[in-house]
Amino acid sequence: MAQRIYNFNPGPAALPLTVLEEIQNELIDFRGSGMSILEVSHRSKWFEEVLDDAILRIKRLLKLDDRYHVLFLQGGASMQFCMVPMNLALPQKSVDYIDTGTWSTKAIKEARIQGLDVRVVASSEDRAFTYIPKGVEVDPDAAYLHLTSNNTIRGTQWRELPAPGGVPLVSDMSSDIFSRVFDPTPFGCFYAGAQKNAGPAGVTLVVIREDLLQRVPDNIPTMLKYTTYSSKKSMFNTPPCFAIYVVQLVTKWLEETIGGVEKMEAVNRKKAELLYGYIDSERFYRGTAEADSRSLMNVTFRLANPDLEPKFISEATAAGLGGLKGHRSVGGCRASLYNALPIEAVDALVSFMKDFVKKNG
Amino acid sequence: MAQRIYNFNPGPAALPLTVLEEIQNELIDFRGSGMSILEVSHRSKWFEEVLDDAILRIKRLLKLDDRYHVLFLQGGASMQFCMVPMNLALPQKSVDYIDTGTWSTKAIKEARIQGLDVRVVASSEDRAFTYIPKGVEVDPDAAYLHLTSNNTIRGTQWRELPAPGGVPLVSDMSSDIFSRVFDPTPFGCFYAGAQKNAGPAGVTLVVIREDLLQRVPDNIPTMLKYTTYSSKKSMFNTPPCFAIYVVQLVTKWLEETIGGVEKMEAVNRKKAELLYGYIDSERFYRGTAEADSRSLMNVTFRLANPDLEPKFISEATAAGLGGLKGHRSVGGCRASLYNALPIEAVDALVSFMKDFVKKNG
Repeated sequence: MAQRIYNFNPGPAALPLTVLEEIQNELIDFRGSGMSILEVSHRSKWFEEVLDDAILRIKRLLKLDDRYHVLFLQGGASMQFCMVPMNLALPQKSVDYIDTGTWSTKAIKEARIQGLDVRVVASSEDRAFTYIPKGVEVDPDAAYLHLTSNNTIRGTQWRELPAPGGVPLVSDMSSDIFSRVFDPTPFGCFYAGAQKNAGPAGVTLVVIREDLLQRVPDNIPTMLKYTTYSSKKSMFNTPPCFAIYVVQLVTKWLEETIGGVEKMEAVNRKKAELLYGYIDSERFYRGTAEADSRSLMNVTFRLANPDLEPKFISEATAAGLGGLKGHRSVGGCRASLYNALPIEAVDALVSFMKDFVKKNG
Repeated sequence: MAQRIYNFNPGPAALPLTVLEEIQNELIDFRGSGMSILEVSHRSKWFEEVLDDAILRIKRLLKLDDRYHVLFLQGGASMQFCMVPMNLALPQKSVDYIDTGTWSTKAIKEARIQGLDVRVVASSEDRAFTYIPKGVEVDPDAAYLHLTSNNTIRGTQWRELPAPGGVPLVSDMSSDIFSRVFDPTPFGCFYAGAQKNAGPAGVTLVVIREDLLQRVPDNIPTMLKYTTYSSKKSMFNTPPCFAIYVVQLVTKWLEETIGGVEKMEAVNRKKAELLYGYIDSERFYRGTAEADSRSLMNVTFRLANPDLEPKFISEATAAGLGGLKGHRSVGGCRASLYNALPIEAVDALVSFMKDFVKKNG
């Protein structure tokens, strides 16, 4: 039997074991095709069923109405940092951004490369991105307002969105899509690299509202236009079939095993409360994000004595708790509690942390 | 036991069964990591070993010297159609293209969208792209000369390249990379969607020579610059890990089971000769590409009575010979004989074709 660890990786991250077993079982002969899912044509009925089912499940899970298109792209969220302004900017209007750390900052940089009127309307850089800005005023004349819903590196997450007026919100949701209920209405577009909550690395979900597709300019490269994907159901050229297949299985698991996003959110809240609760109760550890901005997905923390952190991480790894090292740009520790991480993993982590205090406190 | 068909799909296409079995075996616990390859961090030692090994094998298989970088991108060859001119055009110079059908034509279209001085220096459109142009004269002042080494839809393939003088050749090799020996020296850059001869859909190999990297402009989006990939070993952001892993296994198979590209080419020639030989011997069928331009990879043919083609294809499918339908833009039949298709499959196809003549001739 395979020895599996508890996987706290920030992405690529844990997948449900039942999903992995399903992939394994049908890898050589995909659903009676006599071929692997890696070998079937993207234009075959086998793959079309996968694609259609994935789109349907995503629309149901996120409660998207018919104005929203679900697209599958490649290149990760990083590719969206350039595609969003390229497709959605408007003449004589600014493109507005909120800067909550690394990934927001990269998105801003890509808009600037395109020579647009980029405005950073709020930022939490003044306190090292440890919080989510409050009371952001949205300029009704902006083409869009971009934000990062969850910040994996700093462990912060939006709770209440800025009231956008008529301005479409655009959001990078790579690290919290499908993790909690949200109202899609204010969003003109949101996107997510799949490798945290939706599937494996190699596919990016883009959800875009019909009216924003009207903005797509004619004279940009075909593969960089959202309309190329919306008009051909993401099959203008060969899509990343296998990654989309895994997304289909993950969304099926989310609907049929978990029971939807609301149920998933309840589990995620329980996991996060368990870990934050323990961290707050024990002076040996401290959370790095401000309490009202804490992420349900990425719990960032330090040891009161940072010199012990390498020991903490290596002993945790040896105990079968993987991926707890903080991002190399900030150091410290981070436990990513994505959907597929079971609550037992958090129990095990808290036990380990208690034990570590006993031995080193 | 799984019932496997003979898979003549044009891409995504057949993979070696031993590769599929290896993926299946280690899917739940990847090489002792306690995680799936779908779950390990791209910055982990497990994935770095995969990536390094894939790069090394590709360099050995293609006999690339140290001037060449092997990169893994996303978006398919179609994304390269825009990235090539965006990265490799030069001021005051034309970008030259040879048009041998659909994929070349698309590449030309994308260069034109960028407002460059695009010149089509040769074309086989006059005879419906059924041949490869001969005696192409290369303008020494062009920034590069782009060609499509193998044309999947029309079933044609370059045998002798135009003498490029000092102009770097750039080639879309999606459908014949690793299938035959070629001298990389005249190429400044070549690229291939993996889903035919190199792996699954979802990763694109780009091989680029050091001196062409100097051309990459500063002011283009980060994810569209070749230097973003060359300077970070294709890990500026999360790469398509699983697809790269399959490429590693396929290149390992090619080296260790087949014995390299030379051996592979010998098998491929045998397969193609078997099928073309039979087609030429039987008036019931006819090849569509001109004899001196025929592809070793995609054998396109018609039945003398085209009304019988739907019957031919559906009976072949029922007999376990899949993917024989010609591209929807040209109709007819096509057998794709990529590396992983065993010679037994071609034997079975020829037997079926003989039998079909007996019953319908």
